Amino acid sequence: MDKHLEAGNRQSLAGYQATHFSWEQRGAVGLITLNRPERKNPLTFESYAELRDLFRRLSYVEEVRAIVVQGAGGNFCSGGDVHEIIGPLTQMSMPDLLAFTRMTGDLVKAMRACPQPVIAAIDGVCAGAGAIIAMASDLRVGTARSKTAFLFTRVGLAGCDMGACAILPRIVGQGRASDLLYSGRSLGGDEGLAWGFFNRLAEPEALLEASVGWASEIATGPGFGHAMTKKMLHQEWNMGVDEAIEAEAQAQAICMMTQDFHRAYHAFVAKQRPEFKGD
Amino acid sequence: MDKHLEAGNRQSLAGYQATHFSWEQRGAVGLITLNRPERKNPLTFESYAELRDLFRRLSYVEEVRAIVVQGAGGNFCSGGDVHEIIGPLTQMSMPDLLAFTRMTGDLVKAMRACPQPVIAAIDGVCAGAGAIIAMASDLRVGTARSKTAFLFTRVGLAGCDMGACAILPRIVGQGRASDLLYSGRSLGGDEGLAWGFFNRLAEPEALLEASVGWASEIATGPGFGHAMTKKMLHQEWNMGVDEAIEAEAQAQAICMMTQDFHRAYHAFVAKQRPEFKGD
Amino acid sequence: MDKHLEAGNRQSLAGYQATHFSWEQRGAVGLITLNRPERKNPLTFESYAELRDLFRRLSYVEEVRAIVVQGAGGNFCSGGDVHEIIGPLTQMSMPDLLAFTRMTGDLVKAMRACPQPVIAAIDGVCAGAGAIIAMASDLRVGTARSKTAFLFTRVGLAGCDMGACAILPRIVGQGRASDLLYSGRSLGGDEGLAWGFFNRLAEPEALLEASVGWASEIATGPGFGHAMTKKMLHQEWNMGVDEAIEAEAQAQAICMMTQDFHRAYHAFVAKQRPEFKGD
Repeated sequence: MDKHLEAGNRQSLAGYQATHFSWEQRGAVGLITLNRPERKNPLTFESYAELRDLFRRLSYVEEVRAIVVQGAGGNFCSGGDVHEIIGPLTQMSMPDLLAFTRMTGDLVKAMRACPQPVIAAIDGVCAGAGAIIAMASDLRVGTARSKTAFLFTRVGLAGCDMGACAILPRIVGQGRASDLLYSGRSLGGDEGLAWGFFNRLAEPEALLEASVGWASEIATGPGFGHAMTKKMLHQEWNMGVDEAIEAEAQAQAICMMTQDFHRAYHAFVAKQRPEFKGD
Repeated sequence: MDKHLEAGNRQSLAGYQATHFSWEQRGAVGLITLNRPERKNPLTFESYAELRDLFRRLSYVEEVRAIVVQGAGGNFCSGGDVHEIIGPLTQMSMPDLLAFTRMTGDLVKAMRACPQPVIAAIDGVCAGAGAIIAMASDLRVGTARSKTAFLFTRVGLAGCDMGACAILPRIVGQGRASDLLYSGRSLGGDEGLAWGFFNRLAEPEALLEASVGWASEIATGPGFGHAMTKKMLHQEWNMGVDEAIEAEAQAQAICMMTQDFHRAYHAFVAKQRPEFKGD
Repeated sequence: MDKHLEAGNRQSLAGYQATHFSWEQRGAVGLITLNRPERKNPLTFESYAELRDLFRRLSYVEEVRAIVVQGAGGNFCSGGDVHEIIGPLTQMSMPDLLAFTRMTGDLVKAMRACPQPVIAAIDGVCAGAGAIIAMASDLRVGTARSKTAFLFTRVGLAGCDMGACAILPRIVGQGRASDLLYSGRSLGGDEGLAWGFFNRLAEPEALLEASVGWASEIATGPGFGHAMTKKMLHQEWNMGVDEAIEAEAQAQAICMMTQDFHRAYHAFVAKQRPEFKGD
């Protein structure tokens, strides 16, 4: 990156310690672990905010090329904690409620806006906001025993939480999304794989390795190109076909100016495997 | 509901008798039966209009919390009657044709606009406008022997009828929708289940019970929340992701002001099952 | 067609010979064969342009009612040739790069804009721009051994090529599209069928016959109606549901003015099979 841009646009997470979850770098893969296993890793006001801030910061962290999100202790995430979140919400004013729902929505926006592909590694309970974090990831690896439930209806709310009515139908189709959102029922691992919610299943004990391994493969790819893929999947969400094609003509022309494109060509000619550097 | 709003916004269907189909309330579930089994329940100008008017009226009927649509006698619906609809259409002026296609489209708009989730219970023939009513429902229960055909092409028309080119691809994907719309072929029950067109299959003799049972479960849920889920699935159809997330932040904050949300919290704390009332 | 319109709007492809692929008419079916089997049918600057121009011209060719695209020699298409396309691109200025990406995008726009449904017949290698041509078709027939790879990431580029980030998620869902676009991996025939990427599979030796046979069936259908179906699938891509329903009310009212609609009605009454003529 150009030195004039570095000040604001290149940051490091070296030494970063998360307070309300754990963060670890494994090579170019950033690993987020929701880490209150005795409660199945619920979210709190604090962990929402810290996750949001981390994903926002990742936009400026070139050394991290892919993210894995997992839960500790055999469960992914039980969602917003009933005592720490639901209880207080029942006492809040409308402005405060909106501040809360915007904060949770901002986590999804930040996950979609960061340039790194995000892989959710899902075992056991994956409920409420946990299901949303899974949905908001780019790729999902599950286990056969995982139970993913968009259970907002069970607490008297609507299925429209953190983008679910927009994003879930695009992953599994409008009819299946309606089923999950009206019933709040658990989607099993095999069913989720058949529906395209999960990209892959792994054995519980191999889940982390499978997910980090996949993320590592992605991290060795052309980072600038991957970031553009993610940006355009977002950008073209509600464009017309012709406008999307023009948008991609511009985006891909930009990518053709990168060194990674040249590296790939020269490696191909030399019958070698390209080493991508993300510039 | 506030008494000032009641005049225009709370209506009852007690004693309502439909002329061109049958209507029945089973608890909080409204059951529509297309009821000309000797002709496989075709639609007529009159039944289109009456269905449209009923679905519009349902927006103001709080006592009905979910809808089931079925056909009598082992078939769902054979679509627009050839003699009673197709014949007259071949004689109409353009303004009258448009009045007709807008009337049929208004039925779909009304089905999407009413706050109650709609379950289609589909056995046997489900063709033309019948297939559209199935598609326009929120959830679909089929039978293995059911045959769903978007057969507009067979009568010389386009597949773009009553919203099919917009809605069907979002349920089964663009490629499978193209197949159905260009060929007009029948989609079988098992295939429809594998594609996510059907949410569930039932044995023919158990279809009504399965559908009404499912609707009853939904009807015991938080009605205000369910209505918001349905509204937002509609509203976010062509929003960008970020705009959809903001829309959901607002919509869910509204739901957090409802009594049903409080009921669910207090029931959880008391280790009881919440009783939702829809307010 | 009215004689005043004929000059600009009715053209024939009788005697047309393509330079960079082969073109053949089989009845009302136009057959495009990518035809450099020794290199697995790569695309070149010239073949992109010629394909774009042919698909544009097809808007005015009534005698062709459906298109099949195949590759010669057991492979569909290996995409942009490394030596003839990738190499030169690494030397180009930004304006020239954009001219190139717009040219390739224009091929997809032309495929979506021509009134004829397009069937891709896919065997063997189907990579890069080849995968895009498959994706941009209306229907896809594959073989079990076919390998479809959106491998732009392998050459250091983004997955957003020729509309892939918009169109592919609508065919296979957002999660599965992300997998294909981030990894560049091959999608097999059976997997592609299960995902709805392929509409059908055929044995390699029966692939052409199956595809041309299907195209012939479509070609005997109501051409005006089919063209309207294709147009509205495109047009409603990013409309709201209510706006799409109104758009279809207008489009279908237009179709009800065609002779094909009348033919179908009279054939039905006479218990005959209608003969559609496309007017």
